[in-house]
Amino acid sequence: MPDFTKIFEYISENEYPFITRLAEAVAIPSVSGESERREDVVKMGTWLSEQLTKAGATDVELKPLGKEDNGLDLPPVVVGRWGTDEKKKTVLIYGHYDVQPAQRSDGWWSKPFKLAIDGDRLIGRGSTDDKGPVCGWLNVLDAHREAGVEIPVNLVFCFEGMEESGSIGLDDLIKREADGYFKGVDAVCISDNYWLGTKYPVVTYGVRGVSYYEVAVEGPKADLHSGLFGGIVYEPLTDLVHVFSQLVTPQGEILIPGLQDMVAPLTDKEDKLYDTLHFDLSELEENVGAKTVLQDSIKKAMQARWREPSLSLHGIEGAFAETGAKTVIPHKVIGKFSIRTVPNIEPRKLDEIVFDHVKKSFAKLNSKNKMEVSLVHDGDYWVTDPHGWSYTAAVKATKEVYGVEPDLTREGGSIPITLSFQNNLNAPVVLLPMGRGDDGAHSTNEKLNLTNFIKGSQTLAAYLHYLAE
Amino acid sequence: MPDFTKIFEYISENEYPFITRLAEAVAIPSVSGESERREDVVKMGTWLSEQLTKAGATDVELKPLGKEDNGLDLPPVVVGRWGTDEKKKTVLIYGHYDVQPAQRSDGWWSKPFKLAIDGDRLIGRGSTDDKGPVCGWLNVLDAHREAGVEIPVNLVFCFEGMEESGSIGLDDLIKREADGYFKGVDAVCISDNYWLGTKYPVVTYGVRGVSYYEVAVEGPKADLHSGLFGGIVYEPLTDLVHVFSQLVTPQGEILIPGLQDMVAPLTDKEDKLYDTLHFDLSELEENVGAKTVLQDSIKKAMQARWREPSLSLHGIEGAFAETGAKTVIPHKVIGKFSIRTVPNIEPRKLDEIVFDHVKKSFAKLNSKNKMEVSLVHDGDYWVTDPHGWSYTAAVKATKEVYGVEPDLTREGGSIPITLSFQNNLNAPVVLLPMGRGDDGAHSTNEKLNLTNFIKGSQTLAAYLHYLAE
Repeated sequence: MPDFTKIFEYISENEYPFITRLAEAVAIPSVSGESERREDVVKMGTWLSEQLTKAGATDVELKPLGKEDNGLDLPPVVVGRWGTDEKKKTVLIYGHYDVQPAQRSDGWWSKPFKLAIDGDRLIGRGSTDDKGPVCGWLNVLDAHREAGVEIPVNLVFCFEGMEESGSIGLDDLIKREADGYFKGVDAVCISDNYWLGTKYPVVTYGVRGVSYYEVAVEGPKADLHSGLFGGIVYEPLTDLVHVFSQLVTPQGEILIPGLQDMVAPLTDKEDKLYDTLHFDLSELEENVGAKTVLQDSIKKAMQARWREPSLSLHGIEGAFAETGAKTVIPHKVIGKFSIRTVPNIEPRKLDEIVFDHVKKSFAKLNSKNKMEVSLVHDGDYWVTDPHGWSYTAAVKATKEVYGVEPDLTREGGSIPITLSFQNNLNAPVVLLPMGRGDDGAHSTNEKLNLTNFIKGSQTLAAYLHYLAE
Repeated sequence: MPDFTKIFEYISENEYPFITRLAEAVAIPSVSGESERREDVVKMGTWLSEQLTKAGATDVELKPLGKEDNGLDLPPVVVGRWGTDEKKKTVLIYGHYDVQPAQRSDGWWSKPFKLAIDGDRLIGRGSTDDKGPVCGWLNVLDAHREAGVEIPVNLVFCFEGMEESGSIGLDDLIKREADGYFKGVDAVCISDNYWLGTKYPVVTYGVRGVSYYEVAVEGPKADLHSGLFGGIVYEPLTDLVHVFSQLVTPQGEILIPGLQDMVAPLTDKEDKLYDTLHFDLSELEENVGAKTVLQDSIKKAMQARWREPSLSLHGIEGAFAETGAKTVIPHKVIGKFSIRTVPNIEPRKLDEIVFDHVKKSFAKLNSKNKMEVSLVHDGDYWVTDPHGWSYTAAVKATKEVYGVEPDLTREGGSIPITLSFQNNLNAPVVLLPMGRGDDGAHSTNEKLNLTNFIKGSQTLAAYLHYLAE
């Protein structure tokens, strides 16, 4: 068994410099989904490459990805190496340095792009998704360098800046560099997901995919006064609401014909995996903050999260969205929804039945407005065997730090790039999370517990050592 | 017949100073519906009182209205007088100096709060609703003063700053000042509506009312990640969409039981009034900018606008409303809709059936989320006899300037305060519009034609002279 004493001590004794670095990262509002923030995303990539170099990584580069459809330059992928010993295994470390949008007015108690410390909680956009884990790897490098301990594997870093916007361009880069920068990679480690609850660590062997759609309904040439035109025109928002009401019921039942037929049946063996989870319904309700869970057992709820598709309506662009009262008939509205996908939903087949259903729903309205439905981005689901060598190392590392056997879980969220790494590098992927189930990724007041930042960094370090065994 | 030569000449020869004054007014973003703009609304009231004084009005005051529910001071009502000759009739001139919200990103081609001139069009928020008409009265004062022509009636001005937000406080002020500042008022003139089309002037004898409602649905304590929680929780936005889909059909049919029963039946006499309008379906479609009109004749369309209720969905607060793709489950959404009311819909009875219907619709969803429906503001409809003496003056004035007999119309939009003036001052109210049907009040690229600004000002002047006859 490796001796982790020096490494673990260094990490636990350096929480302040580590927090300071995370605060620097959070302060750069690298929102990939807002074009006016693109410069900040690029700035964040540059910051990260400098940090890697400072930590001792070599061959650090900003790999350009070309342009997005809107003409903007895509943020570069930050790559780097640590060690090139041919006798060692090589692990690719993936993370992302972009974040979800956040505005104080969404309901943040503190400024989203200024790390706030409240007891054990480090609060800020990106703290847990995914700047905390990315900084965790920097902590691991610092610890080995300063404690004078050799890392027993070679590392290849791959940090992207478009994860929250469909990882545009990364898939091509992985293909391009499979025999280039990423040649010889034996395993891939991704720390971009969460524990089930708040107390028990997990290692993860599957994720749902996501297909994000827009439904645009357009009628008048400009917004109209509802006094003058109410009752006289087909209103785009009314049409959209009727189309949306035909997508999903309040009970979460998806109304798109053919979707459920594609879902893999639940075997007895898989069903039993859900009986031993260290998580319960009250903890799930606590994450939600209300007793509004659809299922009446944690088993059914986790099956819904991990192995069943779901459809969420996200919002409407073009309608009145402020506080107050505006008597407008919006002339064009764009409704947004996404479907989380699971084995064996095939994305192109899904698009087909979604488009067909939306078009039929709209046709039934007999509206004179125009409707268009389109796919914004998608990423496939991914499931693997939780008993491979890389997984075993992750499980041992987690047990070493937390003293318990981690739950083997799947994720409801999507990390589409997982599949691309596995297929193109022909290497097993492990998801080794740092944060907790109540961290609020994508939500207001996103946080990472300091405990998890420290112990999570220790776990990442231990994983590398077990991997070499 | 009065001799209008000098007055009309002065007005038509001074378009540049008049445009300059309107530009000053438009430059103050007096949006009453946005609390952060309240200072600008107050600034606009002060500017207007200074303009009145400069023009020669006396007893100019800023009448305070107390506080709004949110703790903000209500903008004051600007009052003033011109003449106190007991032998003359006294006319109360009403207008409003607040405007609807406007942002460049809504689709404005120019800055909404900077008056743009494009040929005959004066483009800017408030240009036609209602800063143009208010400035029209200042033009009338200038013309009489500078041309040395006596105004044959006394004027009392009453310009409010909360019209776009339900005229909060004005009703009480009218009651309070009925025997005070407004004592002795014989007629009321309001210029805050529009021609039917773009070519033919109108005088207006009725308006619809409006009742504005909010439906708030709340579940989780904070926004959730749709990957983690999609399929596991009752989603507030899904509930809201289902409730909204039960309010109105794409064909404009209102689904609230009991509403249609309150609508006054159409008599043969009233039906015939719709046969002689100078307006056609293609002109209406041009206003809309698309062939998405619900009715197949202009008669049916105008009956829908003037004498039938309508229900418009305006938007949703709390959901994702930006461009791009955010995978959020909003934890609280507030849907906004309003109903335009007509004889004989009684507002309190309407609230009752609306609340009842929304509650029943939500109950049917069997959702565990919480729902609240509330009235935001309302104003009653108003209809009067279009053959009274004040109306006759308005009709003659319009004919004098435009050379044609104006259409007698009703309005789809709401000017709730009309009813309050009529009832509390016991004086006939006339609606004498300045702008055209395609001005885009409440919409993007709101405009007032310069022709209408000038001829409209002449019409207001002529009205005062015919009134004295």
